[in-house]
Amino acid sequence: MQIKRHKTRKVKINDLEIGGDAPICVESMTNTDPHDVSATIKQINELASAGCELVRIALPDLKAAEYVKDIKKETDVPLMADIHFDYRIALAAIEYGIDSLRLNPGNIREPEYVKKVVDAVKEKNMTVRIGVNSGSINRKKYPHPTPEALVDSAFEHIKIFEQENFFNIIVSLKSTDVLTTIRAYEIFSKKSDYPLHIGITEAGTQFSGAIKSSVGIGVLLYEGLGDTLRVSLSGNPVTEVTTGYKILQALGLREHGVEVIACPTCGRAEIDVEKIALDIENSTSNINKHIKIAVMGCIVNGPGEAMDADVGVACSKNEAIIFKKGKIIKKITHNQIKDELINAIVS
Amino acid sequence: MQIKRHKTRKVKINDLEIGGDAPICVESMTNTDPHDVSATIKQINELASAGCELVRIALPDLKAAEYVKDIKKETDVPLMADIHFDYRIALAAIEYGIDSLRLNPGNIREPEYVKKVVDAVKEKNMTVRIGVNSGSINRKKYPHPTPEALVDSAFEHIKIFEQENFFNIIVSLKSTDVLTTIRAYEIFSKKSDYPLHIGITEAGTQFSGAIKSSVGIGVLLYEGLGDTLRVSLSGNPVTEVTTGYKILQALGLREHGVEVIACPTCGRAEIDVEKIALDIENSTSNINKHIKIAVMGCIVNGPGEAMDADVGVACSKNEAIIFKKGKIIKKITHNQIKDELINAIVS
Repeated sequence: MQIKRHKTRKVKINDLEIGGDAPICVESMTNTDPHDVSATIKQINELASAGCELVRIALPDLKAAEYVKDIKKETDVPLMADIHFDYRIALAAIEYGIDSLRLNPGNIREPEYVKKVVDAVKEKNMTVRIGVNSGSINRKKYPHPTPEALVDSAFEHIKIFEQENFFNIIVSLKSTDVLTTIRAYEIFSKKSDYPLHIGITEAGTQFSGAIKSSVGIGVLLYEGLGDTLRVSLSGNPVTEVTTGYKILQALGLREHGVEVIACPTCGRAEIDVEKIALDIENSTSNINKHIKIAVMGCIVNGPGEAMDADVGVACSKNEAIIFKKGKIIKKITHNQIKDELINAIVS
Repeated sequence: MQIKRHKTRKVKINDLEIGGDAPICVESMTNTDPHDVSATIKQINELASAGCELVRIALPDLKAAEYVKDIKKETDVPLMADIHFDYRIALAAIEYGIDSLRLNPGNIREPEYVKKVVDAVKEKNMTVRIGVNSGSINRKKYPHPTPEALVDSAFEHIKIFEQENFFNIIVSLKSTDVLTTIRAYEIFSKKSDYPLHIGITEAGTQFSGAIKSSVGIGVLLYEGLGDTLRVSLSGNPVTEVTTGYKILQALGLREHGVEVIACPTCGRAEIDVEKIALDIENSTSNINKHIKIAVMGCIVNGPGEAMDADVGVACSKNEAIIFKKGKIIKKITHNQIKDELINAIVS
């Protein structure tokens, strides 16, 4: 079983392909002070280690744009500058080596300034994301941020770029409302083959936000929509990356690291399933190979229910069994669970 | 914008309606020792307080079934017994006042025993959930737990009940694999109008499991499928309930308590958005009225981006503004944020 992806044209940010048949990209964004260069570099590299493939940084002023030069020296992951209104910041960021821009050309207003930006990105063969959200639509025309308003707003910005013969575009249409967001992407994708950046904007605190993002991004991906994604969460952005991969993994769209399946436990469980599962999750977090590990609290149903797991453990009160693909390979004691599971994974 | 739900027939567990036009029900399951009556009662009531509308308890033996009598005295929330294989436990649970059963009649094997159970549930006008999962399908017929295998297995159990003229049935078809689960419900719902209990089985540790469940349950709900749900997570089952409501809320299917939208923060944020959002989330967790609260790190975009929020705060370095439905109602200092937000909510 596999999801059939909506066909989009492919764009590139350095060597990173987005759209077409390229794997769905996982993005994030720094939340360090843009004038604190060393903190920003540190966070970018933490994000890259977690598997982030494209890091966005806000550039609120010209000074921040200048720092791009220093940041680029210390990291290999492609960087996208988030720019609002001021075309001079865009030009500076390009000059100092940024790899991509997120910029809505309609916000720059003056056609001659738009042309300057387009000329600069064209010269470097860059890709630009147009990022429409509930806050960026024309309130006079659309008093409410409906899906149609988001889509129309995106096409207004697209038109400005297309008039300049610029087509290396990624589009996002984000609302804080999940249904509005889904509907906007559905409508847009019927009218356009530009690659889509998907996400739910201002999704909330880590746990609540992860749920809301998983629902919204999950539905879009299931419908075949989305070429690159960002899970927006408050707090340490590394969680955005791990959450992004978990969403993709749930739908079989990408494999990344260890996946621990724990049975939800019931009155029949005779061990602390959660503790063992968390233990395994923590002690395998640096494994990049994709492995499915099951921790089951019941020796009777365990191996059968977790037949698809590469490796698993099922426990009764007095013993435990290690199984691989549903086949029991070893009887062990409770003390041996963690070590034997890790052994079974690496062997 | 609203999701159109798949039309199912309605069943009842006491006064709780499931299916048809009834609100989508949020379930959970105890994980206390079924012989520890006071711990089980305590957990059932904690689940009920969190909004759980149907609590399942595992009854592994006759002793556990007898305790149903004591448990029923101490709680009003409907209880469903989870029973495997042994029809005597089912009969005992019914005798001692259980409100519903989760039981796969094919597992009881002997037709005369099945008839005894059906007679007993019919007499009390009870509803039974048939719960098929990857571990319960016929491995000889289906070496792999495909969606079709899950659906066929469900219909085998349904047939046994229907032959006894019993139709008060809820059906679940759960796999640990999200795509298999979604596809199974899609296929089943085209062939049947029995109400559906949805969920992803053994979904994992709290954070990973919540993501996987949100994706799977989210897609099904978006397709209009699901009349009652359980988010299966290891650990304290109260999280299953809060997660369930957050999923329903994300799709506009139910409103429950306070929803805090926090902007994901970027280099422009001048306050600790996550800290304020968590503070607000914690100090409003006992409010049952549905309210959308926004915490925005940027005074320029904040009120516009969070126009749909009932109440919100947006902050610059030196001041903050409280807004309602996008309209600024007050300028305040940072120290006043929490109190003024709470004031704005209750007023």
